[in-house]
Amino acid sequence: AEGAGAIEILEGLLSANDREAAHNRAHFDRHGVLAVNLMSAPGAGKTALLERTLDTLTGTLRVGVIEGDLETENDARRIRAHGVPAVQITTGSACHLDAHMIHDALHALPLTALDIVFIENVGNLVCPASFDLGQHANVVLLSVTEGDDKPAKYPVMFRAADLLLLSKIDLLPLMDDFAPARAETALRALANTAPV
Amino acid sequence: AEGAGAIEILEGLLSANDREAAHNRAHFDRHGVLAVNLMSAPGAGKTALLERTLDTLTGTLRVGVIEGDLETENDARRIRAHGVPAVQITTGSACHLDAHMIHDALHALPLTALDIVFIENVGNLVCPASFDLGQHANVVLLSVTEGDDKPAKYPVMFRAADLLLLSKIDLLPLMDDFAPARAETALRALANTAPV
Ligand SMILES: Nc1nc2c(ncn2[C@@H]2O[C@H](COP(=O)(O)OP(=O)(O)OP(=O)(O)O)[C@@H](O)[C@H]2O)c(=O)[nH]1
Ligand SMILES: Nc1nc2c(ncn2[C@@H]2O[C@H](COP(=O)(O)OP(=O)(O)OP(=O)(O)O)[C@@H](O)[C@H]2O)c(=O)[nH]1
Ligand SMILES: [Mg+2]
Ligand SMILES: [Mg+2]
Ligand SMILES: [Zn+2]
Ligand SMILES: [Zn+2]
Repeated sequence: AEGAGAIEILEGLLSANDREAAHNRAHFDRHGVLAVNLMSAPGAGKTALLERTLDTLTGTLRVGVIEGDLETENDARRIRAHGVPAVQITTGSACHLDAHMIHDALHALPLTALDIVFIENVGNLVCPASFDLGQHANVVLLSVTEGDDKPAKYPVMFRAADLLLLSKIDLLPLMDDFAPARAETALRALANTAPV
Repeated sequence: AEGAGAIEILEGLLSANDREAAHNRAHFDRHGVLAVNLMSAPGAGKTALLERTLDTLTGTLRVGVIEGDLETENDARRIRAHGVPAVQITTGSACHLDAHMIHDALHALPLTALDIVFIENVGNLVCPASFDLGQHANVVLLSVTEGDDKPAKYPVMFRAADLLLLSKIDLLPLMDDFAPARAETALRALANTAPV
């Protein structure tokens, strides 16, 4: 019974979240901003990827970043060091970002002056996949140090991916049990046709 | 309001969980079994550590394993290949093990014939920390590939650790920005005196 009660509450929260997510998407669309939700396990390299991407995009596209972590401003600080506006969300103990947090954060960004907003979710290969934030696309990072069985073992996240990026591939020669083809096979087994 | 409702339900679930956890602990204690809860980010090396540990303990202590994953029997299979009884829990979409799942699993293990039960939790550096399973100790793995800022950024998990193990230290020479001392400083900042 307690389980059923929790499921009902969760469904209520999800539909409230979906309404707020749609509202966020309307904000992004009105300003012609593409919103990308970046998800991965802790430390797979989301912020490192963003730092590289920002340097590549400088001068061509105007980028803003929303950072999600339980604690610290570390990641927002790293982004700002590249001259890019970044809003840090600290969730305290929550394991994922939700649409309401993103709504507050997007109003703290100069949306009219931006082309893309990257949202770096809390490092977690499970929970963030279930909460729409109003993004247009989900990018999931899988570090080769985590093992090529991750899509099979964490299917909810990998089903949600519009693009799967393998990270830390400089370490691939050292990871004798990681085969990119096996990771892709595990992804396809979830009926996900996203590029890898 | 919905948030408050969710918090109440969560508190209800937690206290139901705590009762079941106490019941599990009584089971373990009655059989003189030490129960250890192993937690980390996905792919930090929990199963690899267990495989090595089992080989080391063979002939001295009798070990059983409870494996938690969203999907697949992979990890239980890896354990059984070492001649050790293993029960696989597949949570579907749940991001952590709870005491009820452990109760079912421990009744599927020959507790009278065991000295230690290792519980490998779902790979997640947030949610598992909040659910008592009836274990006697929490061991948290931090892979050096994840970055030495993880205790600061995922404080709930690292506060719960009775022992912090650094994993994949063979890769330490390649991770030029991971300093074990910085990871330990971040852990101590949470007022956690656990050995590293
Ligand atoms: N070898 C190698 N290390 C990398 C690469 N990308 C990131 N790292 C390292 O991985 C660790 C974590 O990188 P971050 O960018 O902070 O990872 P993150 O996913 O943002 O981490 P959280 O936000 O805490 O979940 C750091 O020590 C980085 O130096 C890579 O391509 N190769
Ligand atoms: N270099 C190196 N790789 C390791 C070490 N331990 C584990 N790995 C690799 O890390 C990857 C994941 O290892 P697992 O033992 O499956 O990790 P896990 O924490 O059980 O993963 P999940 O149960 O899926 O969360 C595999 O490719 C292992 O070969 C280590 O000490 N050094
Ligand atoms: Mg980051
Ligand atoms: Mg495992
Ligand atoms: Zn969760
Ligand atoms: Zn019982």
